[in-house]
Amino acid sequence: MENVVQVEVRWSECDPFSIVFYPNFFVWFDHCTWKLFQAARLELPMLREKFGFAGMPLVGAESAFSRPVRAHDAVAIHSRVSHWGRTSFKVTHRVMLGAEQAAQGLETRVWTCTRPDEPAGIKAVRIPREVIDILDGPAPR
Amino acid sequence: MENVVQVEVRWSECDPFSIVFYPNFFVWFDHCTWKLFQAARLELPMLREKFGFAGMPLVGAESAFSRPVRAHDAVAIHSRVSHWGRTSFKVTHRVMLGAEQAAQGLETRVWTCTRPDEPAGIKAVRIPREVIDILDGPAPR
Amino acid sequence: MENVVQVEVRWSECDPFSIVFYPNFFVWFDHCTWKLFQAARLELPMLREKFGFAGMPLVGAESAFSRPVRAHDAVAIHSRVSHWGRTSFKVTHRVMLGAEQAAQGLETRVWTCTRPDEPAGIKAVRIPREVIDILDGPAPR
Amino acid sequence: MENVVQVEVRWSECDPFSIVFYPNFFVWFDHCTWKLFQAARLELPMLREKFGFAGMPLVGAESAFSRPVRAHDAVAIHSRVSHWGRTSFKVTHRVMLGAEQAAQGLETRVWTCTRPDEPAGIKAVRIPREVIDILDGPAPR
Repeated sequence: MENVVQVEVRWSECDPFSIVFYPNFFVWFDHCTWKLFQAARLELPMLREKFGFAGMPLVGAESAFSRPVRAHDAVAIHSRVSHWGRTSFKVTHRVMLGAEQAAQGLETRVWTCTRPDEPAGIKAVRIPREVIDILDGPAPR
Repeated sequence: MENVVQVEVRWSECDPFSIVFYPNFFVWFDHCTWKLFQAARLELPMLREKFGFAGMPLVGAESAFSRPVRAHDAVAIHSRVSHWGRTSFKVTHRVMLGAEQAAQGLETRVWTCTRPDEPAGIKAVRIPREVIDILDGPAPR
Repeated sequence: MENVVQVEVRWSECDPFSIVFYPNFFVWFDHCTWKLFQAARLELPMLREKFGFAGMPLVGAESAFSRPVRAHDAVAIHSRVSHWGRTSFKVTHRVMLGAEQAAQGLETRVWTCTRPDEPAGIKAVRIPREVIDILDGPAPR
Repeated sequence: MENVVQVEVRWSECDPFSIVFYPNFFVWFDHCTWKLFQAARLELPMLREKFGFAGMPLVGAESAFSRPVRAHDAVAIHSRVSHWGRTSFKVTHRVMLGAEQAAQGLETRVWTCTRPDEPAGIKAVRIPREVIDILDGPAPR
């Protein structure tokens, strides 16, 4: 399952060199991961109730940038889970500017649940089979 | 030469899970790269005048996150150039929360000059020897 | 002429209290002003070429917030120029969450042109009649 | 009681016109309000425990901008509570660039407490006398 999000670059997402300030690509990646889950009908309230889900913090993030993106450009970001570990997973994001790829990013996230007895109150746990099956399957209609 | 920047985490840099929204680490890295150049007395107006410098856009960025950082935490970010290529260079950033490392980032940047004849108006060029020597040397007093 | 922009609230636009961090309303207002100009076919390159336009910096900004907006809410922002001065103008933005108004903002901006002889390189000048006529007229089809 | 926060303008806080993107002034104002409370030893965990404090959302925000601020400028922001209502209060922020005032902002905030029986889970309540007395008094040493 892949999800595509259209992003129109805001003026304010560009820096004084008139190109996108690079951390904003990661802002988009994060947004696209949430949209991927939403497209799969894995919404936050349901995840909280059903699995005790407490977020999916990042342990790693990276991106390669191959061409500049500018204010008011319209990009399409293609996102999918590209790897499942036991408690962690990777989301790949391709930023397309028309037919050309402008950037490719990778987020490594950890699946966590609330654990009142833990010092941080949360704990990395095994990713639910159901979540994996949905995100590995076809997009819901 | 290494430069250290103290950053106090703003409330607004945290997300609804009450930890730093991860793209903000990259916002800090960018700021720290500019501060490194500034500490080396390589300020933007001088670079523009002397070398025709037109910015140092990113071709890659990555970070590993090893522990959560929260609102009002005070972090110290240690930054240095860790690799020189011909037209590109890498800046390493270590985010320390007290004695513990909370994140480690790497930016890969390209040195560019203004080139009115180029389509984009800028071009990646060989990094000036003088810039390398200063950033490889001791911090100015 | 009024322009409407749909904004889907990003997770990262919310703070640890899980509501939109209020400066993001102003980020949206700025974006909506650019979109209003764009909808009127008053694009930045044209404005630069035809009028020597050098931006429309803010001299004032304000907003009232009447109900909380949350991650993944879809808001519609209605924007129009509500006042024309000689060199300044006001843009009103209404943020609608369904049928309810969540916020109303007002930006006061100054029309500037490049003036190489001025210390700042720009100067507030009389707003071109053509610009006023277009933005006071009906939306182009 | 007035609190002063030093802010060094980040490159990324500027837009393609090379001046601070105006919503960032509000980002600073918010940060300065938290710092004011912190300077008064009214920290979030204490407020939560002692008063059931659930945040101080904005009902209004405004700013006048009198001169441009640029990357790497160092500004000093002077913040104090300028008005107490029953459940709301106003915080005034003056942004100084050396001896000159660059901006002046005003936030109107509502004091809220957790109320599990309310639809939103929070409710605007009378501001505790103790909080008013501390913020109206001299800065703690």
